[in-house]
Amino acid sequence: MRVGVIGGGQLARMMVPPAVELGVELAVLGEAPDASARIAVTTVGDYRDADVVLAFARGVDVITFDHEHVPQEVLHALVDAGVVVRPGPDALRHAQDKLVLRERLQGLGVPQPEWARVADAEELGAFIERVGGRAVVKTPRGGYDGHGVRIVSSAHEADDWLADGPLLAEEVVEFRRELAQLVARRPSGEVAMWSLVETVQGDGVCREVFAPAPHATARVERVAREIAHTVAEALGVTGVLAVELFETFDERVLVNELAMRPHNSGHWTIDGAVTSQFEQHLRAVLDLPLGSPDAIAPWSAMVNVLGGPADGDLDRRVPRLMADQPAAKLHLYGKTTRPGRKIGHVTATGDDLDDAVFVARAAAAFFED
Amino acid sequence: MRVGVIGGGQLARMMVPPAVELGVELAVLGEAPDASARIAVTTVGDYRDADVVLAFARGVDVITFDHEHVPQEVLHALVDAGVVVRPGPDALRHAQDKLVLRERLQGLGVPQPEWARVADAEELGAFIERVGGRAVVKTPRGGYDGHGVRIVSSAHEADDWLADGPLLAEEVVEFRRELAQLVARRPSGEVAMWSLVETVQGDGVCREVFAPAPHATARVERVAREIAHTVAEALGVTGVLAVELFETFDERVLVNELAMRPHNSGHWTIDGAVTSQFEQHLRAVLDLPLGSPDAIAPWSAMVNVLGGPADGDLDRRVPRLMADQPAAKLHLYGKTTRPGRKIGHVTATGDDLDDAVFVARAAAAFFED
Repeated sequence: MRVGVIGGGQLARMMVPPAVELGVELAVLGEAPDASARIAVTTVGDYRDADVVLAFARGVDVITFDHEHVPQEVLHALVDAGVVVRPGPDALRHAQDKLVLRERLQGLGVPQPEWARVADAEELGAFIERVGGRAVVKTPRGGYDGHGVRIVSSAHEADDWLADGPLLAEEVVEFRRELAQLVARRPSGEVAMWSLVETVQGDGVCREVFAPAPHATARVERVAREIAHTVAEALGVTGVLAVELFETFDERVLVNELAMRPHNSGHWTIDGAVTSQFEQHLRAVLDLPLGSPDAIAPWSAMVNVLGGPADGDLDRRVPRLMADQPAAKLHLYGKTTRPGRKIGHVTATGDDLDDAVFVARAAAAFFED
Repeated sequence: MRVGVIGGGQLARMMVPPAVELGVELAVLGEAPDASARIAVTTVGDYRDADVVLAFARGVDVITFDHEHVPQEVLHALVDAGVVVRPGPDALRHAQDKLVLRERLQGLGVPQPEWARVADAEELGAFIERVGGRAVVKTPRGGYDGHGVRIVSSAHEADDWLADGPLLAEEVVEFRRELAQLVARRPSGEVAMWSLVETVQGDGVCREVFAPAPHATARVERVAREIAHTVAEALGVTGVLAVELFETFDERVLVNELAMRPHNSGHWTIDGAVTSQFEQHLRAVLDLPLGSPDAIAPWSAMVNVLGGPADGDLDRRVPRLMADQPAAKLHLYGKTTRPGRKIGHVTATGDDLDDAVFVARAAAAFFED
């Protein structure tokens, strides 16, 4: 069993442990020899170059991804060459282009914010008026972690982006909180879902995740599962799909975004579930039966380590963290520190959510200045 | 933080996942490019060759081991060159030579079977007579998994081995069961112990492990912990130490053997404890504060996969196992199948020991013919 992963970031890196345990040979196409997933990097090259990717794909049973940025032309070149690609190009389009996603979700009747495709300032102005004077505009492609997202209240505030093509405009959803429903689906159709989780964002970046989502009503949980199931099935997703959701004050559940790969909202599963999202992703793309997504403890809390100490010296912080929080599970991504960069995360599990949150936050705080 | 591991077997392989998660760079000196730990092999060479080992050790912060076979001369060459070696040569001698161990344990007053150093058939005959007509003879060095162990009832049954030097003779202990106490110790002296476990052997090879040891009395647990603590401390062990024990029918606890590295009796900790023996070993040899050894579930059961299917085809068995036992945690060592060879293990955890044992056995059975 050989899996090739395009992209050498932390998601590829975190596939290494389950690959080692399952006896799966992992090969990674990394951007640089010192990529986060460097221990598994077998090729260094540009994922936008079809020749590089085709050469890399030789000898693996399936190609999957650390990120969703591989161009459709390259994906189709792989498929045309007989390479098994999971998720496939048609599914991935929905994670690559937010306009494609919105159109598709509308066709499926999946609840989502009000939205429009706006090609110019006039259309944007009309949409802003329709949704009450403020709108979110998003570049359809290439946005992540808050990049490519802007809140506007007048027609000309996105002229710079509109010069490059149409944008997605969405209503500003007044939400109680953000949730995420992770699901894994294998080609045979089997799906497995972890608990619905609550995600806490700051500056557009995921900061904390609580699993399961505290005080979620049975209805919200059911709707989230139905949405994830519908989307995974209809889009033909293989592997892990993360559905990021808004929970509104009137208990509606609206789809915010999708990711077709392991996702920050599922990092808690490494320590908190029988089968982690990374193991499940490998199983799913290899079309192996899925593992149990059950939690191993009543509560898990995950806190991201962002930026890291200004002095860049992680090695001095780690011993202090370990001495202070012996039950915290530390995950470092082998990256250099940089303001705002996700360089690791900490998870704690237990019978009490407050305790788990305390441990995870206390541990992560050792990397702050 | 860079750790160099001498030996590329499954123990080195299972250090890879925690190294990846902790941000520790792992380098492995493997016997062959296709060693079990191949993903982390940076040097292929002979661990008995001091030049090879010295070159490998350059650039790592500490050297540790997948096995205890590195010759003392090589270990001392490392130490003389200023390399940090954990556990060190003086500690390792006790895991390399069973006569050295027995003498030392006697000096420490640690309970162990009756034993003697026998240099010839006459001495062996006298010992057999003294312990009731039967004795276990062991080659002091190089034995493992039942190799180098023989039960004899007359003086000349070990002449072939005696030709190579003195042997260790031990009474045949009538034991109720075998136990193991794992402990981790770091250079600063901090120790952490997992639950006492029961180990089930067959043909001299570990077959199953139950954690914690069912129905162990508080006294037995206390004595096992005291023994492990005494041995780790007195021998100056750094890293994981496995103390294999006999529990006799009259509830004595006797030391059978030691291993100074992660050990089969601790594989359950990967899935069953907050900190696995492999993570703890890395922390200990790096002199980092130790993680919590607490169990994450009331019971864990580990079953070894020995030999594997005669057709050698693991890939056809894995999907059946996964479909049948979605909660079983499968660990394969990337080895080819061979009768009796440890090629993997399965762990199950839960609130009920019988259920966990059932799941682990049912899963492992998919590799039998």
